[in-house]
Amino acid sequence: MNAEILSIGTELLLGDIVDTNAQSLAQTLAKFGIAHYRRMTVGDNLERCVEALREALSRADVVFTIGGLGPTADDITREAIAKALGVELVHDENVEKMLREDMERRKRVWLDAHAKMAKRPACCKTLPNEGGPAPGLVCEKDGKWVIALPGPKHEFLSVLGYLEKTWFPEHREGAILSKVVRIAGITEAAVEKRIEDLIDSENPTVAPYVKLGEVHLRITARAKDEEEAEKLIAPIRTALKERFGHYAYGEDEEDLPYVVVNLLKTKRRNLATAESCTGGMLGERITSIPGASDVYVGGVITYSDEAKATHLNVARTDLQKYGAVSEEIARQMSEGVVRNFKTNYGIGITGIAGPGGGTETKPVGLVYVSLTGPRGTEVKEERFLGNRETIRFRATQTALLMLYEELVHS
Amino acid sequence: MNAEILSIGTELLLGDIVDTNAQSLAQTLAKFGIAHYRRMTVGDNLERCVEALREALSRADVVFTIGGLGPTADDITREAIAKALGVELVHDENVEKMLREDMERRKRVWLDAHAKMAKRPACCKTLPNEGGPAPGLVCEKDGKWVIALPGPKHEFLSVLGYLEKTWFPEHREGAILSKVVRIAGITEAAVEKRIEDLIDSENPTVAPYVKLGEVHLRITARAKDEEEAEKLIAPIRTALKERFGHYAYGEDEEDLPYVVVNLLKTKRRNLATAESCTGGMLGERITSIPGASDVYVGGVITYSDEAKATHLNVARTDLQKYGAVSEEIARQMSEGVVRNFKTNYGIGITGIAGPGGGTETKPVGLVYVSLTGPRGTEVKEERFLGNRETIRFRATQTALLMLYEELVHS
Repeated sequence: MNAEILSIGTELLLGDIVDTNAQSLAQTLAKFGIAHYRRMTVGDNLERCVEALREALSRADVVFTIGGLGPTADDITREAIAKALGVELVHDENVEKMLREDMERRKRVWLDAHAKMAKRPACCKTLPNEGGPAPGLVCEKDGKWVIALPGPKHEFLSVLGYLEKTWFPEHREGAILSKVVRIAGITEAAVEKRIEDLIDSENPTVAPYVKLGEVHLRITARAKDEEEAEKLIAPIRTALKERFGHYAYGEDEEDLPYVVVNLLKTKRRNLATAESCTGGMLGERITSIPGASDVYVGGVITYSDEAKATHLNVARTDLQKYGAVSEEIARQMSEGVVRNFKTNYGIGITGIAGPGGGTETKPVGLVYVSLTGPRGTEVKEERFLGNRETIRFRATQTALLMLYEELVHS
Repeated sequence: MNAEILSIGTELLLGDIVDTNAQSLAQTLAKFGIAHYRRMTVGDNLERCVEALREALSRADVVFTIGGLGPTADDITREAIAKALGVELVHDENVEKMLREDMERRKRVWLDAHAKMAKRPACCKTLPNEGGPAPGLVCEKDGKWVIALPGPKHEFLSVLGYLEKTWFPEHREGAILSKVVRIAGITEAAVEKRIEDLIDSENPTVAPYVKLGEVHLRITARAKDEEEAEKLIAPIRTALKERFGHYAYGEDEEDLPYVVVNLLKTKRRNLATAESCTGGMLGERITSIPGASDVYVGGVITYSDEAKATHLNVARTDLQKYGAVSEEIARQMSEGVVRNFKTNYGIGITGIAGPGGGTETKPVGLVYVSLTGPRGTEVKEERFLGNRETIRFRATQTALLMLYEELVHS
């Protein structure tokens, strides 16, 4: 069995909203092992909607529509399904009765427009919607399924929840389970090189996804249920972690701040930060992890030269001599913050995040990250591409990675 | 002219990620008045990708692809475009040279896999990508355009930004223009009450969107060009700003940090921050604004009690007496940071972001924000709902709003 999703709504084509309903439904399809090869979006236009439905039905065994089930003129899904399947649109007395009762309960006035929601393609049954008045629709005709879900988020989730208890278990084809191994410290291409032999594997598949400052290897297995899928994934996950050693720093939702905070906890060490161009982003990322207070003491944001001199004891003569964005100043920042906050580790970041402030010798994207710890100080020079936000994020990523590697090796 | 978008990536069909790139591109199409009737998503499968491309080209004048331009085996977009258009895939010496220079500049090793990114369908030109190595692609063949954008967010935005300055202005068909009036400091319900008479207007339309800690009023007009659309919008925008007074703090992309930084510049005042539960998020938000260095000196992240005492001279006896999350400590934090950093304004934030650490008298979500300035110190107690991230963000939003109101009224 393979499925397609057709999202219906002009607001989607205008980019006013992002289609998180289609994402949720896609996750459900994966969970029940139903293949999903194509997704489409059309506006509130009957002709184009019928055309897309017919195309989808020519390829897929089940077509899910999302949206267009409300009472207003631009809600065209019922009519489109009837046309695409070549059936009549009929009035359902029972649905009207239910709608009227619902309106009364919520003290709303019944309007003629509401009667539209009581119509359904003759072959369809209704699906209960606890989130709102419009029921979902389901039918099987000529060996193909059509299932219509409402668009408003809470109504969509109500009908999807019902289907997950009824239709999906009856049509389970297995389970598709995904797990992620997170890699940092080597390039995307180098990651690819090391998994060349796995890239054509079929079940589980292994696919690399490039994120900002790291690569995620997604292992996806298809099996008869989740437990079997997990069994297929486990040896590959172990193999990948062995292959990448400490570069494989975490799994699934465990991001670099999470892993670093937990390593610091395990090793009973603490940390302070001194940030210039990142302006607090490193502290923010570390403290996004609940319980960071066990290992993170705090730090200083020294955005001005004066603040670097006063609060980190950076030498004013060196600020003059080397400039604030230099290896020397980064070093003095991390050494200063370790001294002032009396911690095991200190990180200093200074750089040019742009868009202004770059020169020929010190371009936008030049960042120095310094790590001071029991084994001394190490400074990294980086030249990042991207906008202000990207450069700042990458700087914090480099800092976390340096600390991660130090903690792993010490 | 009408456009279709084809997003390429198995991770989209599995629901692993939500397609915000397609949303951004849809917004750009609307901005330039280009009709957009259908959007599709396929996985990393060459055959299905070629099929979808051919279908899109049979309907649309321009087809945008998103994703699949990286160096790995499942990046199939170049090949799919070449096949769909019936042209050769050629190696571009200039692109390889550029890729190699880029790798060298970033001190990365050149791998055979990288050469893939130097390939292009013979009819295509490359589009500059400042966010990463893989260039975008553009071609016009038999009266149809194909434009390929990379998938990673920052690369996608870089190439889209370039197109918005080049290709889009040349192909403008009209304009759907949206402008936002940003409101903070009053509740969502109060905002809605005040715009009841505008909610059914047709061109422009006015719609409220609830954001974290603020409400955006979106005014949307459709016209033959941006200038005409702007003329339709202007009187409504002026009326809304009059209606909401200083609560209407900014427009469009001008977020609260932007407005506060610029008010500080105008008034020639400067600022320092003392953060506990937000861990640097306030500094990060302020320094996300280019040129913040003119008014933001820096600050301290005092995550531990010891750091509050040492670096902000918060009285240890008061930490004992009132607890770190209290009006008194917030006050001493903002007063301490003004004194130590010698600034006009200082902000102190202390609270319980959760999920742990709450008690009956001091529950998760309790936050004290203190503002010290030439007119003294003001402390606000807030009880926020939501998760750790939401509570922290709302705390910074309150801090920025207090400073905004102080700057407007002083």
